[in-house]
Amino acid sequence: MAQREHVQSLNGAEGEDDLSSIRDRLRDFAAARNWNQFHSPKNLAIAISVEAGELLEHFQWNEYDESHAVPADKMPKIKEEMADVLLYLIRLGDVLNIDLTQAAKSKILLNAERYPVDKSRGSAKKYTEL
Amino acid sequence: MAQREHVQSLNGAEGEDDLSSIRDRLRDFAAARNWNQFHSPKNLAIAISVEAGELLEHFQWNEYDESHAVPADKMPKIKEEMADVLLYLIRLGDVLNIDLTQAAKSKILLNAERYPVDKSRGSAKKYTEL
Amino acid sequence: MAQREHVQSLNGAEGEDDLSSIRDRLRDFAAARNWNQFHSPKNLAIAISVEAGELLEHFQWNEYDESHAVPADKMPKIKEEMADVLLYLIRLGDVLNIDLTQAAKSKILLNAERYPVDKSRGSAKKYTEL
Amino acid sequence: MAQREHVQSLNGAEGEDDLSSIRDRLRDFAAARNWNQFHSPKNLAIAISVEAGELLEHFQWNEYDESHAVPADKMPKIKEEMADVLLYLIRLGDVLNIDLTQAAKSKILLNAERYPVDKSRGSAKKYTEL
Repeated sequence: MAQREHVQSLNGAEGEDDLSSIRDRLRDFAAARNWNQFHSPKNLAIAISVEAGELLEHFQWNEYDESHAVPADKMPKIKEEMADVLLYLIRLGDVLNIDLTQAAKSKILLNAERYPVDKSRGSAKKYTEL
Repeated sequence: MAQREHVQSLNGAEGEDDLSSIRDRLRDFAAARNWNQFHSPKNLAIAISVEAGELLEHFQWNEYDESHAVPADKMPKIKEEMADVLLYLIRLGDVLNIDLTQAAKSKILLNAERYPVDKSRGSAKKYTEL
Repeated sequence: MAQREHVQSLNGAEGEDDLSSIRDRLRDFAAARNWNQFHSPKNLAIAISVEAGELLEHFQWNEYDESHAVPADKMPKIKEEMADVLLYLIRLGDVLNIDLTQAAKSKILLNAERYPVDKSRGSAKKYTEL
Repeated sequence: MAQREHVQSLNGAEGEDDLSSIRDRLRDFAAARNWNQFHSPKNLAIAISVEAGELLEHFQWNEYDESHAVPADKMPKIKEEMADVLLYLIRLGDVLNIDLTQAAKSKILLNAERYPVDKSRGSAKKYTEL
């Protein structure tokens, strides 16, 4: 009951639509179902990889990627798989006490050092090969 | 130069630390390097899967997951791999014009329907088997 | 028709049950369906990864791995996913003109050098950390 | 010592270059290093997925797939990653007591039923959508 209200409040205008808000919802979700026993870091890392594979499956054979145009009827499933990857990633961040937003920003700064504009422009090479 | 200032402003106090802020930085990052040619949905979906595999590698043999305690010296690499998954996921969301935050919230609502507390408590079964 | 007989001969006693026999069947299979257009190395590498994810999904939450005992009712699906990974791997080997058996043997020799018995006994460390 | 001779005999002309020969070598390899403790089905399924991701990484951005021509200098690494996937797959087959060759042949027969030539010619659709 309380659980239900909680979940519905996701749509409420609470002025917080970032990763920490989702993290808290997932934490409640797992606690209410007694799922923390399954949510070891190892199992969550597996889940991220499995969901990433399901996302990739939608791009397996078709060549619609080249025009950057994905058929409209494919979008809901792709969206759902992307959400799955994100949810497990946020959950793993919570379990490991990692601030994902901060981690993402730090990685962008590192990438900016690794891939200086002048060296990497128009190149798909890894920084170790630049 | 402008690029550099842009990237450094990530650490600035701009009152926006959510996914859309990171999305904009990644968009600028790719544009400055002329990388949009590589960022087809298919290639980004591959990148997400590859990075998820690199994250998973850290949990491959070791059993430290069971205590939920990951050795401190493993954390920086795990954090970086998680950031990589997130960055490519945000980039794919941008290319496909998907609002990731909204997608995640919708998926939580769907999961709440699929996994009612009373049926799923303490169970690792998929909703199709509940 | 000829196709059908071909496929059924897989069960025949032809004294060849190795990778090259399967490779030839897959080659005929793809040719008969005009699927070579989809079987680029990139697409086949994606397929291997997607199938590996489907295989991994069966081990996602459950802890039956620890006793090394997988429930009998899970075995047919696991077997099928393993076959899928193998079939795409053989197909990629064919497309890239790689002798998989030879590649596997060479890798075992390399692993024997990287992991000398005395240094690696009882250790899950990567050779770079031994 | 005995181990060393074993490994070297891989290059010998023993008239057996199939999966069961490699399986036996991997079994000896793991036993000599006391690695069976790490080779749970779950860990081996993770390893297959991680190696499939490393293989996929070589096809991540580049578009050489379309001509089916992979640069010669990329081939040794690709070959090695393919071997890694195969070795862990064979090892998992051994641990689960699955005959991989038989599993692959059964799957080809199933695929022949699922993808009749006349319905699937030139189509990349999944059998469930044919």
